[in-house]
Amino acid sequence: MTSKHPENVCLSDDASAVVIIDQTLLPGITKHLELRSSSELHEAIKMLRIRGAPAIGIFAAYAIYVIALQIAQHTADLSSVDAFGEFNKELQKQSAYLDSARPTAVNLSTQLRRMERLVDSLSDKPIDQILDAMKAEAEQIQKEDMDMCLAISEHGLSLVKDGFGILTHCNAGPLATSIYGTGLGPILLAQERGISLHAYVCETRPLLQGARLTSYELSRAGVPCTLICDNMTSIVMKEGKIDAVFVGCDRVALNGDTANKIGTSGAAILAKHYGIPFYVCCPSSTIDPDCLTGDDIVIELRDPDEIKELYFQQAIAPKGVSCYNPSFDVTDNSLITAIITEKGIIEAPFSALQSINKN
Amino acid sequence: MTSKHPENVCLSDDASAVVIIDQTLLPGITKHLELRSSSELHEAIKMLRIRGAPAIGIFAAYAIYVIALQIAQHTADLSSVDAFGEFNKELQKQSAYLDSARPTAVNLSTQLRRMERLVDSLSDKPIDQILDAMKAEAEQIQKEDMDMCLAISEHGLSLVKDGFGILTHCNAGPLATSIYGTGLGPILLAQERGISLHAYVCETRPLLQGARLTSYELSRAGVPCTLICDNMTSIVMKEGKIDAVFVGCDRVALNGDTANKIGTSGAAILAKHYGIPFYVCCPSSTIDPDCLTGDDIVIELRDPDEIKELYFQQAIAPKGVSCYNPSFDVTDNSLITAIITEKGIIEAPFSALQSINKN
Repeated sequence: MTSKHPENVCLSDDASAVVIIDQTLLPGITKHLELRSSSELHEAIKMLRIRGAPAIGIFAAYAIYVIALQIAQHTADLSSVDAFGEFNKELQKQSAYLDSARPTAVNLSTQLRRMERLVDSLSDKPIDQILDAMKAEAEQIQKEDMDMCLAISEHGLSLVKDGFGILTHCNAGPLATSIYGTGLGPILLAQERGISLHAYVCETRPLLQGARLTSYELSRAGVPCTLICDNMTSIVMKEGKIDAVFVGCDRVALNGDTANKIGTSGAAILAKHYGIPFYVCCPSSTIDPDCLTGDDIVIELRDPDEIKELYFQQAIAPKGVSCYNPSFDVTDNSLITAIITEKGIIEAPFSALQSINKN
Repeated sequence: MTSKHPENVCLSDDASAVVIIDQTLLPGITKHLELRSSSELHEAIKMLRIRGAPAIGIFAAYAIYVIALQIAQHTADLSSVDAFGEFNKELQKQSAYLDSARPTAVNLSTQLRRMERLVDSLSDKPIDQILDAMKAEAEQIQKEDMDMCLAISEHGLSLVKDGFGILTHCNAGPLATSIYGTGLGPILLAQERGISLHAYVCETRPLLQGARLTSYELSRAGVPCTLICDNMTSIVMKEGKIDAVFVGCDRVALNGDTANKIGTSGAAILAKHYGIPFYVCCPSSTIDPDCLTGDDIVIELRDPDEIKELYFQQAIAPKGVSCYNPSFDVTDNSLITAIITEKGIIEAPFSALQSINKN
């Protein structure tokens, strides 16, 4: 596998289907699905066969294009502009259906809206031209994500030296984006450039994204990696195995506090204790101008059964025991060495965050 | 359940069997086993139906007594001293067989040797007197452990206030000892005394002793407790839920460095970061006079499949991925507020450790 081609979301050779890796079967089985009907496409989002905010957005753009192709098959004259009304009415209906697959996935609706706006702007064009434009727009959405991931990876790579041991937590790799990923980007790019790194992957309880997805992606790319339990972070740092920590993140406050998968703040405190730099990688769109500090970030609490029943629905704790299951935690800006976006590296103090999205 | 009676290891009412809770079935099923034959007793140790160093030692003492009863049944005249030679020869054979069940469990051989020495010292006594003395010795071994656990629990309790949230890692409770346990002792004793605490239990990957055993013991005793994944330690501390950390330990170096279940050192660093006291509870016999610092403690590396296959033997990571699976880590003395033994509370600097076992 080369990470230059985004095999996790693409069109089939004849452009009639969206092809994805079924992420629910990973890491045991790498199965590619060719999805055509709107119900298949909807189900893939809903059942998390495709996951990761940027990846869902890219998938949605290709999906609505594939659906548009099918709508167009019922259109008598593709070169006529008269067919637009009926075509667009059905397309909007299908777009709303796709959007309903995961109501809280903001990238899903964002990219569907972008595709809808494109189609609206072409209402005086024949259907075949609209279809071509839709395909180009979906490819552009994917290209923008690839460019963003590559830029983050390049900036991150500038902080890495040959022979580094790098610890990462959760999954911020190509499966969740297009290529490279964010937190995983510098590691995968280093591998392509022949820079020798060793990745230490925290398994990331309770849902084990590190074990299931990150170690899969790194193994697939040929990066030497070692899976550890989250509570082994301290010992690998103490033993000198870790030279830097790279993680993705879900939201950045204007003061540099960052929210990411539960366990990230603990890893950051350990990194500070052992004098190891801690880097957060994210698109600049992750910086939330409405969020002054991490205190403004509400932490999602999830189902206790995720802890008690492990990943495979087998009881590992007494049935009645109470569980606390925060999905994310906030890493204080004092623990972060730098925040890496596609626009560059922002070091502490993080005052540059205030203006980055105004450019 | 009251923790005043050690129900995890005891004699049956007619003293013909050792009764244990089958720990391999916890937390789903609480099943008491009555073990009589030497093969049953051997198998219980080997298959970890009984586990925890002090608990294994107590079990072994009762087990060799129960076996001695059976040997004595083949002895013609229990009031005669002539039968000793044959009785003792068979007893030594059975003791060696029991000892072979877990070759590295030091408490197993220690307590079997103690029982053997007792029997040797009574070679001029009739068998029925020897049997009575063996029963009394096994009960004494258990009583010594109960006294030790109670003393540790009392000392630990003096550091706790009503309303405290207490975090604990792994399992250092009654199942592993006799009553109360070590790290769990102050919490269980507080519950008996009507002091209201809330325990936060780290699940303790990879083998989940916290989820399976500690949360079981606390629930059984009626202690309000919340199970968390190990990587949630930082967030519960940050949210002000934790007032103190209590853990057990496997070995203490003379400078106060302590080895305990993997993840302990990380929890200690987080506690220091958040200004939370960190207490290590252990019998004074855990202080190793041959061990100057934690650097002298060799960390056991265990099977990678423990991580990759979770507790229930289902793959959660790519088959070929490498894992690092240290079973313990060493917590630096600078991170420890106090070490609590049955002889009292030793605060930093830990110079008192040098003399504690010389008294």
